[in-house]
Formats: sequence, C-alpha cells, structure tokens
Amino acid sequence: MSLIVQKFGGSSVANPERIRNVARRVVETKRKGHQLVVVVSALGDTTDELIDLASQITDRPSEREMDMLLSTGEQVSVALLAMAIQELGHAAISFTGPQVGILTDQAHTKARIVDINTDRIQQALRKGSIAIVAGFQGQTPDQEITTLGRGGSDLTAVALAKALRAKVCEIYTDVDGVYTADPRLVEDAKKLDLISYDEMLELASLGAQVMQARSVEVGKKFDVPILVRSSLNHSSGTLITKEVKSMENVLIRGVAVNNNEAKITIFGVPDRPGVASRIFKIIADQNVNVDMIIQNKTKTKTTDLSFTVFKTDLKRTLATIGKAVRAVKAKGFECDESIAKVSIVGVGMRSHSGVASKMFGALAAKKINIDMISTSEIKISCVIAKKSGRDAVRVLHREFGLGKA
Amino acid sequence: MSLIVQKFGGSSVANPERIRNVARRVVETKRKGHQLVVVVSALGDTTDELIDLASQITDRPSEREMDMLLSTGEQVSVALLAMAIQELGHAAISFTGPQVGILTDQAHTKARIVDINTDRIQQALRKGSIAIVAGFQGQTPDQEITTLGRGGSDLTAVALAKALRAKVCEIYTDVDGVYTADPRLVEDAKKLDLISYDEMLELASLGAQVMQARSVEVGKKFDVPILVRSSLNHSSGTLITKEVKSMENVLIRGVAVNNNEAKITIFGVPDRPGVASRIFKIIADQNVNVDMIIQNKTKTKTTDLSFTVFKTDLKRTLATIGKAVRAVKAKGFECDESIAKVSIVGVGMRSHSGVASKMFGALAAKKINIDMISTSEIKISCVIAKKSGRDAVRVLHREFGLGKA
Repeated sequence: MSLIVQKFGGSSVANPERIRNVARRVVETKRKGHQLVVVVSALGDTTDELIDLASQITDRPSEREMDMLLSTGEQVSVALLAMAIQELGHAAISFTGPQVGILTDQAHTKARIVDINTDRIQQALRKGSIAIVAGFQGQTPDQEITTLGRGGSDLTAVALAKALRAKVCEIYTDVDGVYTADPRLVEDAKKLDLISYDEMLELASLGAQVMQARSVEVGKKFDVPILVRSSLNHSSGTLITKEVKSMENVLIRGVAVNNNEAKITIFGVPDRPGVASRIFKIIADQNVNVDMIIQNKTKTKTTDLSFTVFKTDLKRTLATIGKAVRAVKAKGFECDESIAKVSIVGVGMRSHSGVASKMFGALAAKKINIDMISTSEIKISCVIAKKSGRDAVRVLHREFGLGKA
Repeated sequence: MSLIVQKFGGSSVANPERIRNVARRVVETKRKGHQLVVVVSALGDTTDELIDLASQITDRPSEREMDMLLSTGEQVSVALLAMAIQELGHAAISFTGPQVGILTDQAHTKARIVDINTDRIQQALRKGSIAIVAGFQGQTPDQEITTLGRGGSDLTAVALAKALRAKVCEIYTDVDGVYTADPRLVEDAKKLDLISYDEMLELASLGAQVMQARSVEVGKKFDVPILVRSSLNHSSGTLITKEVKSMENVLIRGVAVNNNEAKITIFGVPDRPGVASRIFKIIADQNVNVDMIIQNKTKTKTTDLSFTVFKTDLKRTLATIGKAVRAVKAKGFECDESIAKVSIVGVGMRSHSGVASKMFGALAAKKINIDMISTSEIKISCVIAKKSGRDAVRVLHREFGLGKA
C-alpha cells in the first residue's frame, strides 16, 4: 500500500458532473489499495469571479481580505468532492488549508509554505478515509488565512507529497502530459514519458502551461516524483523526476516557442563600466523582470544594448526607459513587439557538442534570421521574427528527431 | 464610547452596491465614536445556491461537509464588507467564526454556541478597527467547522453582544421593525417602538419573519437589548427588551395570522388513559412537531382528537397517522389544510381579564367560526377557516385599538 497525492485543477471540477467524474477517478485509485490525499482547486472560474466581485468594491483591496475572499473557492470544492466520494460509498473527509496544518509566512496572496503538520491527515488516512485538501491556501502562526499565489494548488500537492513521503504526486490536468512541442503547432509532437526537473523548469519558464515553475522547484528540492496526466482519459502521462544517466542519451527533450516577450534596444550607449548596471537598476526598480540581454561591444565608443521583457511588464518598462536613456546619456531606444522566442531544452546538451550549431543551421536553412541568442546549461533560446515562430518550432522539432517514429 | 454589535442579513449585502451601502451605514455609527462589531450573512441567495450545488452531487450530503460548504458564504461577505469599509478610509478586519473563537458543540448544521473567546475581537477593537464577523458559523474544540442553522447569523450577533457586553445588538433587516400586524394585511398596522422578549418569542413562533425565536431566547436569557431596524432607511426600529411594568398598560401588542399549519382529526378514539400518549408518541417518532391539541370528552365511550402540525411536516405525519389510528383502535382520521391560525399577543393579558371573551366576541360579530383555541400566559390563538384569516386579523387589530391614532 502506497500513499499517493492527487491534484485536480479548476477545470476538472468546474461543475457537479465533472466533480462526480473526479470522484470516480479517485475511487479507482483507492480501490487499488492506496492511501489517498486529494488536493483540489476552486471550481472553474470561481477565483476570477471572486476577484471581479472585489474589484466592484475597491480598486486596491487589502491583500489580507483578498485571501479571506479567495480561499473560499477551494473550500467549496473540497466539500463537494468529499460528498461525491461519499455518494460512491467511500469514506472521505475535507479539510481547509488551515485545518490541515499548512503553515505559511505572512506574505498574503503569495505566501510561502513554511511547514506542514500532517497529524490530522494521517489520522484520517489511518481511519481509511480519503483526505480531500483545499489547494492554494494556508494559515500563518497567528491564524491568518493566506493564499499561495498562481499555481498554488500544485504547490500544495507537491508540498503535501513531500511532507507525507508520498510515492508520487499526480497532477491531473486537461492535457495528456508534457509534449516534445505544442501539439497545436507541431502535428507529430510526441508525449514524453519522462522529463527531468531541470528540463521541466526550463520548459515552464518558456511558457509551457502544464506546470508552474515553483511547484517543480519544490519537487526537485525534495525529490518528489510528479506525474502529470489527464483527468479526461487513462493515458500514462509524463513523469517529472530527477535526472538519470539514460536521459542524456536524448539530445533534446523538447522545443518551445512563445510570443510573450518584447525586445527593447537602446542605441548609442556609452561604453563605460557601470552603464549597464545603471540602466537595469532603473528598470528593476519598476519590478520588471528582464529576460535576455545582449550587448555587442564595437570599436566605436558607444554600443547598442538589447534586452527582452515580458509583455505584461512592457508598459511599466516603457514608462521608465526614457529615464534610463537620459541617465546614461544614450542616443535613444526602440521597441519591437513582433518577436518570438524559440528554444530547445534537454539535459543531453551537457554531454553532446554541436547542438547549438545544429540549431542555428536548421533555422538558417529555412532562412529564419536570428536576432538574439541566450543559452543555459540545458537550453538554447533564439529570438526571431514573430511570423517565423511556427516554422521555427517545426523545423527544430524535425531536425532533432522529436516526432513520432 | 459604547460597544455596538450590528448584524446585516443576506439581502442587505446581496451585491457590491448594497455592500457599499452597508459600509457607509457602519461608518456612520463608527463616526459617532462607538466601538463596532459587525456580523454579516452570506450574499443574497448564496446559501441556497450552495445547497443546490450539493443537491446536484448527492441527495444525502454529510452534515459535516454541508457545514464546510455553507460556511464559505459568510466568509465571502465579511471579506467584501471589510474591503468596502477600508475603501471609505476606515480600519476594518474580517474574521471567520473559527478565527473569532466561536466555539460550538458537534451538532453539524444546527450547532449550539458553547463559548466565545473574544480576545481577537477585543484586540482589533483596541486598535480602532471595525471587526467584521462571519455569522452563522463556529468551530468545535476539534477545529471542525460548524453552522448554526436557520437564523444563525442573528444568533451570532446576539451571542457576541452578550460576550462583549455590548450596549445593544442591532439587527438590520428589510423592514422597519416589528409591527402590530403584517402591514400587507392590515393597512394601518403600526410599528412598535418596544416589545418584550416574551412577546417577540410568541410572535416569532407565530411566523413573524423579523427574527428567529432562538436569537430572542438568547437575548432574553442574557438580557441583551435587540434593536430591529431597516438597513434601507434611518427609522428608529423596534427595541426588543426585558419586560417593564409600563408594558402591561397595553392590552395587546400585536395580532398575527398564519396559514402554515394543517389540522388532523382522529375520530372515535377510545376514551381510555394512555391513548393520547400512544398516538403522539408514534407521531413524535417521525420528528413531527405538533402545535395545538384539542380533545373533547363526550358522554360516549369514544372521543374526537384534533391537532395541528406544520405543513412542512404534513407528509411525514400522514405517512404514519394510519398506524396511530390502528394502534389505538380509532375509527379513522381526516386532514384539513384550509385553516388559518389567528393570534393575539401581549404581556398586558396577565393583568387584564376579559381579553379572550373580547377576542371571541369580535370574531363572532364577523361570523367567523372558531375551530380550535389554545392559550398561553401572553397569547391566545384560534384556528379558523383559511378564507377568513385576513378578515380576522383586521377585525382583531381594530377591536384592540392597535391601528395608527
């Protein structure tokens, strides 16, 4: 008998019919003889509806009160799922985050889990009950209700799996798992059976919607195997796990493309020490995350500096960029929103050379011009024209032999 | 500086606009220099919507899970009201029942308040905050969430007023207060400035929707003055308070009529000791509350036995009445749903004679036949034909001089 943590997202419990489906799914696992802890998100669009309610009251809601408000969504889900499981004749008991001892810091709306007291869950499991836990929420030592921010329910599931020493943390979603590329862009994209935490982290940061980076990080830190699978079928899913030697035999795990970034170029930047630091200090003060940065030193006394930011941060960036330009006495700036970032990810890169040149060659053969390049140990990203994004991901998917056999 | 507890019902907070209204109302009181604790119900029809959701999952939801589900409604309200008050520039902090130390027994869906630990509210009040408390809910010593059943938010308010030694507990509703009769039936019905707990209890049990009997009972037990007033205007409302001598100068405080009961008559009941007990034991076993009972001893060896039950219990009663008839070897039974119960209530009855004959005379003058009579120390009720209900309440209202001057 193993202990399994399962997590079902908002779309899996969007209405009573789907809740009954989830209940059947949970009971299937229970019947195999496992101990089960199930983490649930709020029903469908509930969280957005609650945020909308608050916005009709005030433009600047207190974060403490937002947490009071939003945490109700998951409490509704757990009660209904417990009822649905009981209706199938199995013992189930629901818990709020506070009830189940999920202790967090005081950072309302984006709290971090500090500790989990699993006594109450353990007690329920010993009695043979399925424990249903509200995702996304916890409690400070002062009994203030907190929420964990975006992807918070995944985080609850992974953290519970760690605290309970679960065999696996199963994340149920509306896709079959992690793919070699977005199947909407690449017809023969293939579902991966296995992916390393690091590869998943790179893919998540590149915009793969499957899992938030935070939860994968916690999984990696505590070595919690995370199985991403569909709540709609019985496909085996993708296991996110620690890197094993055999993973390196595969050169590239996946290809990703996203249009979420914009490129800003500052012209005629004086080539003196401390200039780049000054520019990015001014931008960072606006809480803007800069992604890629390129600076090419030329033989003149000035240089051009390009960087990308997420489009969600673009307004804030543009509001402050003039100040940065003036501060360093640069000539001016331009902004390009028509860019795409195409990336290849794989731990195999570490032990294989020539991956970058293979990537650049494949893009060149399609006459796709590369604007910026950035690399990590297991990732290479190229900024290209937005219109070439789809072509680029397809040609790379083919080049690295990722398609179905 | 006095401490005041205010309670706003679901219709007062049905949408963001009304929540903002309540916030303004609360702030008005705060500006007068009072310490304020505000109890809120769930938004509009939220509770019914949650019950409907559960009914789509199961016909027999666990009461524990119902409490998990339903308690979310008030949590939404308190968060939104706190935001609305903060938006007006005043300090406010919301609390769930569990957070605020409302300790109950284990009777899910109809829990009783056992104790209130007011530390956290006191702390908020000392800081100058308005404390917003979720009505209708509490927590057992094992940290199980409970709800208090119908009228639970009123109960929360009155119990908090007692625990905090508040000057008054103000119950805001959509009527101006308690009237001498239902203004929809009697045009010149008059709002009462003052009513005793006992009179209010009688009126509540007769179907006056203003307040549930439970909360009035708690108010009476701990001598908490309860002011019922409208959230829509600044009318002074009705104060429910302990009986003072001057109240006896008024013969009758109010007249009520309701059509909520049905009358059942069992014919040919053998006139032997223990027979009635046997009949009502069988009925009570079905959890049916019997209201009025009439038995007339005649010179024959059998008698007819009539009683009334609430129509909500009628189905259960009829399902078991045959058994009772057979058990005591009675001849048969009939059921009449076309009855009305008209009642007069007033502590003045205690010290004035002739009230009953005045009532019967007034009805007789209108040719309204009396079917059953029951009396308490401060109430006389008559069962009459349903079609005469409206006439009866009008004639009694006039007879006892209750109309506007």
